[in-house]
Amino acid sequence: MAKNKSLGTDPYKGVRDFYPEEQFIQNYIFQTWQKVARSFGYEEYNASPLEPSELYEAKSGEEIVNEQTYIFEDRGGRSVALRPEMTPTVARMVAAKERELPFPLRWFSIPNVFRYEKPQRGRLREHYQLNVDLFGADSVEADTEIITVAYQILKEFGAKDSDFVIKINNRKIIRALFEKLSISPKESEKLSKVIDKKEKISAEIFEESVEKLIGDRKKELLQNLESNQKLIKTLGEKDPEVSKLIDLIEALDTLGIKNVQFTSTLMRGFDYYTGIVFEIFDNSEENNRSLFGGGRYDDLLEIFGKRKIPTIGFGMGDVTLRDFLETHNLLPKFRASAKLHLCVEDESAREYARILAESLRETGINTSVDLSRKKKGEQFKIADKKKIPFAICLGKKEIGSRSLIIRNLKTREDKEILESKVAQFIFDSLKE
Amino acid sequence: MAKNKSLGTDPYKGVRDFYPEEQFIQNYIFQTWQKVARSFGYEEYNASPLEPSELYEAKSGEEIVNEQTYIFEDRGGRSVALRPEMTPTVARMVAAKERELPFPLRWFSIPNVFRYEKPQRGRLREHYQLNVDLFGADSVEADTEIITVAYQILKEFGAKDSDFVIKINNRKIIRALFEKLSISPKESEKLSKVIDKKEKISAEIFEESVEKLIGDRKKELLQNLESNQKLIKTLGEKDPEVSKLIDLIEALDTLGIKNVQFTSTLMRGFDYYTGIVFEIFDNSEENNRSLFGGGRYDDLLEIFGKRKIPTIGFGMGDVTLRDFLETHNLLPKFRASAKLHLCVEDESAREYARILAESLRETGINTSVDLSRKKKGEQFKIADKKKIPFAICLGKKEIGSRSLIIRNLKTREDKEILESKVAQFIFDSLKE
Repeated sequence: MAKNKSLGTDPYKGVRDFYPEEQFIQNYIFQTWQKVARSFGYEEYNASPLEPSELYEAKSGEEIVNEQTYIFEDRGGRSVALRPEMTPTVARMVAAKERELPFPLRWFSIPNVFRYEKPQRGRLREHYQLNVDLFGADSVEADTEIITVAYQILKEFGAKDSDFVIKINNRKIIRALFEKLSISPKESEKLSKVIDKKEKISAEIFEESVEKLIGDRKKELLQNLESNQKLIKTLGEKDPEVSKLIDLIEALDTLGIKNVQFTSTLMRGFDYYTGIVFEIFDNSEENNRSLFGGGRYDDLLEIFGKRKIPTIGFGMGDVTLRDFLETHNLLPKFRASAKLHLCVEDESAREYARILAESLRETGINTSVDLSRKKKGEQFKIADKKKIPFAICLGKKEIGSRSLIIRNLKTREDKEILESKVAQFIFDSLKE
Repeated sequence: MAKNKSLGTDPYKGVRDFYPEEQFIQNYIFQTWQKVARSFGYEEYNASPLEPSELYEAKSGEEIVNEQTYIFEDRGGRSVALRPEMTPTVARMVAAKERELPFPLRWFSIPNVFRYEKPQRGRLREHYQLNVDLFGADSVEADTEIITVAYQILKEFGAKDSDFVIKINNRKIIRALFEKLSISPKESEKLSKVIDKKEKISAEIFEESVEKLIGDRKKELLQNLESNQKLIKTLGEKDPEVSKLIDLIEALDTLGIKNVQFTSTLMRGFDYYTGIVFEIFDNSEENNRSLFGGGRYDDLLEIFGKRKIPTIGFGMGDVTLRDFLETHNLLPKFRASAKLHLCVEDESAREYARILAESLRETGINTSVDLSRKKKGEQFKIADKKKIPFAICLGKKEIGSRSLIIRNLKTREDKEILESKVAQFIFDSLKE
């Protein structure tokens, strides 16, 4: 061991250490995600964060592959990437077993994903992201279900309908509008990117950029983008994509999901979306921003030489979600693993403590035993600092006695109790 | 999108894809680990798999840093490693908050760790590993607790005492023996490595290697290593390290843990162990091998320029554990997320299906709804293939009726039931 120079204790730049109080919140988020996804019958899958880098060369915006993805060469000369997102991985997995899997597939995963971001405030190089995907169903019902899952997750976290809004669009509608306005495919591509940035740039720059691309067709485009009524009129209510969107919004309405907004300028970054796209926004003033989103990508499996499998899904990151929960005061309070701490006041009681702890664990009471050999008051203090709710002190006189004193470490109340009643007492107290 | 060439669907070499049936077992393993660790009051922590590579240069065997660790340079010129094990990370985290953390600390984590292994059967480049550590307690009680946690985990998985054996040693005992036999520190180091490999090489090669290192002191060394009685006699029962080991074995015995073996040749690879080391072996003939182990490392935090914090811990990998569970027939059967599948026989029933599903989910019944639009028989088949236990078919005549037919997809039994009783029926059936 090289002991001459002390090592630093910082983690790698842009990633997080999860101390127990942080990990508690991570677990709460992950479990809530799992609970809701499973309630709709979604099954969990996972994969390694290491992927052959060629998986990302075939898709995503160019920017991501070249500048933001961690890529390195292994000793065998293979180019390896740390996954920047989960969609290519899940598409790869579905493509590999496309003949045997029972479609429609409901799948979810909670991977960590990596982006090489330039170091700046709030930009992390690793975060966790719930991915929920529905493979092999191309219908308004499928779209309705995926958006319902997203909605129910926020509700399960305790959010109110007024806390967020679900913006929905259909890329095919925008494409149809472009066609109506005689915008060429090449112009369309650039124009989509400009529209995607509309909310991030000033109205003047936006209008200038549009004019530069399509000249005097600008006016009509902007009128259609500003008024949904005008847009629907331009395309006709019987346009199949328009009517699908109307059906979707109605189906959500029958389920009580009414905080929905048709937003024709919503594009979402990735190239692979082919139809419906949606994005959930925080309504609060302090955190008025996009939380997460998703969309339909029907063509992705073709890059593996497989048949088309229509798919819709979304991804939801832990960092933005946590900000949302914090803003709306929805984060849970830390609860310690141990519900009871057994203090040891006299070494003669150590064996009794060990055996009592084992029998309490068997009844389902998580129990820790003192190892500090400090004074009783100190032991209580440490247990309280760890946020353990109850403590019992064991000394000479407790050995063989069937009566114990249990302390509520928060209220400092003591209560005499039979040894055989300890587990029930703790269960009842924590239920309240 | 580059569509000219099809992409392969294989994962990166040496890592695993977890399809739902595989992930189900991973979740079972992780939850069992969490449950037992928490029952002793251990708190979960986590960190990124990315670490500054200098963290591994200060410790571990040289081999690991140079040949087996994934190291690459990021775009900022920083040398980054994919963690090959968790101990340096947790030591870093404890060192960083050493002044504020409430010792003794009971911590656990379930990280994925990476090793660049030469491609060969059964050698994976990524696996998950439970890490359980107890920081800030240097006593027989602390050693007893850590070994008890390891034991209880195997019991929780359903293993019998006769399925495995816990081998225990104390490195200080071997060091004391070396001193008695006038073996120099330099000889000791090499000798420890030879002893560590004893079980992997032939007796002849082992004896030759020992003789080459220490000449005619070989005979006495081997006699002591072969007989624990002789060894204890050589050092004296009152030797503090010998008596600690005896106390530990006795303390485990009072907790009913009797499949314990003092094994003086047990060394364990890592350089940082300073006292007690232990390793759990599978007793079965088919899988007669080391499963996992741990030990006491009291000096590790010194590399961060901090005070000594005595620590004992262990690591338990998912791959070896799974082999063990498979060998002893202890793997659980896959259970689907959804407990009930609602088939839709007629499109007019779709809205009813959506609303019934939502209300069942609210009562805690995970419910999926058909999106395939296939015939009833096909819908049952798909649900059964997904291992969903129950299905209800909804057509025109079910709308508004309060009576439904629920099918047990395994037994193919049908049963008429009131809509309001569906949830209770499923709860009761799955409890049996």
